[in-house]
Amino acid sequence: MSNVLAGEESEKVVTYGWAARDTSGILSPFHFIRRANGDNDITLDILYSGICHTDLHMVKNDFRISIYPMVPGHEIVGKVTKVGRRVTKFSVGDIAGVGGSVGSCGSCSDCSNGFYVYCPKMILTYSAHYYDGTITQGGYSNNIVVDQNFVVLIPKSLPLDGAAPLLCAGITVYSPMKYYGLAQPGLHLGVVGLGGLGHVAVKFAKAFGMHVTVISTSPSKKEEALEKLGADEFLVSLDQQQLQDARGTMDAIIDTVSANHSIQPLIALLKTSGKLILVGGPPSPLEVLAMPLLLGRKIIAGSAGGGREEIQEMMDFAAKHNITADVEVIPMDYVNTAFERLEKNDVKYRFVIDVANTISCMSN
Amino acid sequence: MSNVLAGEESEKVVTYGWAARDTSGILSPFHFIRRANGDNDITLDILYSGICHTDLHMVKNDFRISIYPMVPGHEIVGKVTKVGRRVTKFSVGDIAGVGGSVGSCGSCSDCSNGFYVYCPKMILTYSAHYYDGTITQGGYSNNIVVDQNFVVLIPKSLPLDGAAPLLCAGITVYSPMKYYGLAQPGLHLGVVGLGGLGHVAVKFAKAFGMHVTVISTSPSKKEEALEKLGADEFLVSLDQQQLQDARGTMDAIIDTVSANHSIQPLIALLKTSGKLILVGGPPSPLEVLAMPLLLGRKIIAGSAGGGREEIQEMMDFAAKHNITADVEVIPMDYVNTAFERLEKNDVKYRFVIDVANTISCMSN
Repeated sequence: MSNVLAGEESEKVVTYGWAARDTSGILSPFHFIRRANGDNDITLDILYSGICHTDLHMVKNDFRISIYPMVPGHEIVGKVTKVGRRVTKFSVGDIAGVGGSVGSCGSCSDCSNGFYVYCPKMILTYSAHYYDGTITQGGYSNNIVVDQNFVVLIPKSLPLDGAAPLLCAGITVYSPMKYYGLAQPGLHLGVVGLGGLGHVAVKFAKAFGMHVTVISTSPSKKEEALEKLGADEFLVSLDQQQLQDARGTMDAIIDTVSANHSIQPLIALLKTSGKLILVGGPPSPLEVLAMPLLLGRKIIAGSAGGGREEIQEMMDFAAKHNITADVEVIPMDYVNTAFERLEKNDVKYRFVIDVANTISCMSN
Repeated sequence: MSNVLAGEESEKVVTYGWAARDTSGILSPFHFIRRANGDNDITLDILYSGICHTDLHMVKNDFRISIYPMVPGHEIVGKVTKVGRRVTKFSVGDIAGVGGSVGSCGSCSDCSNGFYVYCPKMILTYSAHYYDGTITQGGYSNNIVVDQNFVVLIPKSLPLDGAAPLLCAGITVYSPMKYYGLAQPGLHLGVVGLGGLGHVAVKFAKAFGMHVTVISTSPSKKEEALEKLGADEFLVSLDQQQLQDARGTMDAIIDTVSANHSIQPLIALLKTSGKLILVGGPPSPLEVLAMPLLLGRKIIAGSAGGGREEIQEMMDFAAKHNITADVEVIPMDYVNTAFERLEKNDVKYRFVIDVANTISCMSN
């Protein structure tokens, strides 16, 4: 339950979370004040908060945009405790979710098309300047106040811990499947990397009726991919014979790998007019030969997520098809260890913090 | 007029052209025999043959696929002198054109979709193995025998010399404008490189009602681009201020440059969901940062040409809008000098050989 201050500041909300204080990236308990719940706002008591690989980059200032102290977290599921008087889509008691954005200009063509994630004035859920001059803070905390246009309803049938990662990992792979016309039965999709994003990509693609090949550097995840996640094929990307046999067979590939890697072998796997869609974002420049793109009318594309309506659509689709992320639920004070393990890819497939049950005991 | 042999070989056609004999790329007169005009074939007396930059690469075996002796030429306009008994779309006396392909499997998905240019068994107009085991020879010659499915009608209103380059340069820029949904009034198109392809791209884009910015390394072509070709803007790609001012303004860019160059500054010029379309094919790998693609949902794409129906559509569109290439018409024996000048980009904008009037005198 949110703690409300008395007097003039009566609407401002006392919040406790865990924050990184510097580029060491080590998190520790942190008390702060969130803005008052405005007419268009919703306040959530946070239940679960997923740990995205981006959080790890952000706490260490890898993108050079971090503002400290920083409470990370942009895969947030919580219970609505307050709604502003202009809020129409949510009621107290609803279960709702917040992803990577909490604000945007609302008037540019990207916002008008429902894709505020591409708005030049998009406001990140944490470590960004909000309209009122405050710094946004994320979901590793007991509550959050968010504009209703950046909140979605979580369908009642979804387990809430496994639903949290859909708010970032889920929409990151779902959005390009829809935008690039992949969500069609029978199309052949390659999924590169079987981590937080990749394993959800396999689940969505199978629910769309696609034929799915997981592409990984080592055969170690083969059984898991085929038997647990339901992929149809498994391709070891360092095996030249397997690469040769699969040439020209895929309609599209979603590449979830954020470490530097070669994409040229992936382009050869595509059919004519095939699409290689990057959602991972390796830091070093990729090397791309033009001729294979020309001679096969192939595409290399990027995608970063979706807007509110598309996230809601994805959540409803996930509920209908029983899709959640496979998660390891952890207590709040395990977060630093979780970051260490995440750095070594030692998680299947997403850490999710059980905020509601484990954060309060650290805050006194 | 074709010369027909007597007796059993009566249908085979004696042809004279100019051929490269080795990787020096120097062309000289060459007599050879073309196959008999089959039931599905059309024989053309060649009138004009455009010189594409690819011809220059091919005569020097830059792509490692050249077969000598080689008669180049894949921008061919001629008069129909013979039609096979199953030919339905052409009559003797028609003016017809042949582009980069003269055969394909006819049954794969690319062929079925009308894009035989992407068929894995597509047969190049010259320097390729035809079904009958012969080596194909191109348009720097007095006649050619071609399957009707690889021939288009040239509308009567088009000047034939300026129409010839449309069969390669034209379709190479027209096809991606259609395929990638660019051919819409008001969309903003950048055209990189103002050569054989680029100048035709400007003309087609203006005919589609697009807003066109020519992007060039030097300001020397500015007046020509704006006043002669009708472009709306001119951007010097080495001018950082101009690049900065144009960030995020273009719906798409067609990059016609085949020399190595950086494409990263071009990606910054695109709006959200903008498309950079490569049609030039630089030999060295391009360096591409993933993040700008992700954060703007941008695309890097390739395109190589179109099928018969799309080439015909383009020809009819060109006739309706009076679009032809700007050409320098040359005699056949000027071809080696033309290649030297082409290597230095010393042509506005396409050499076209006046085959009918200048080749016969060299062949005796």
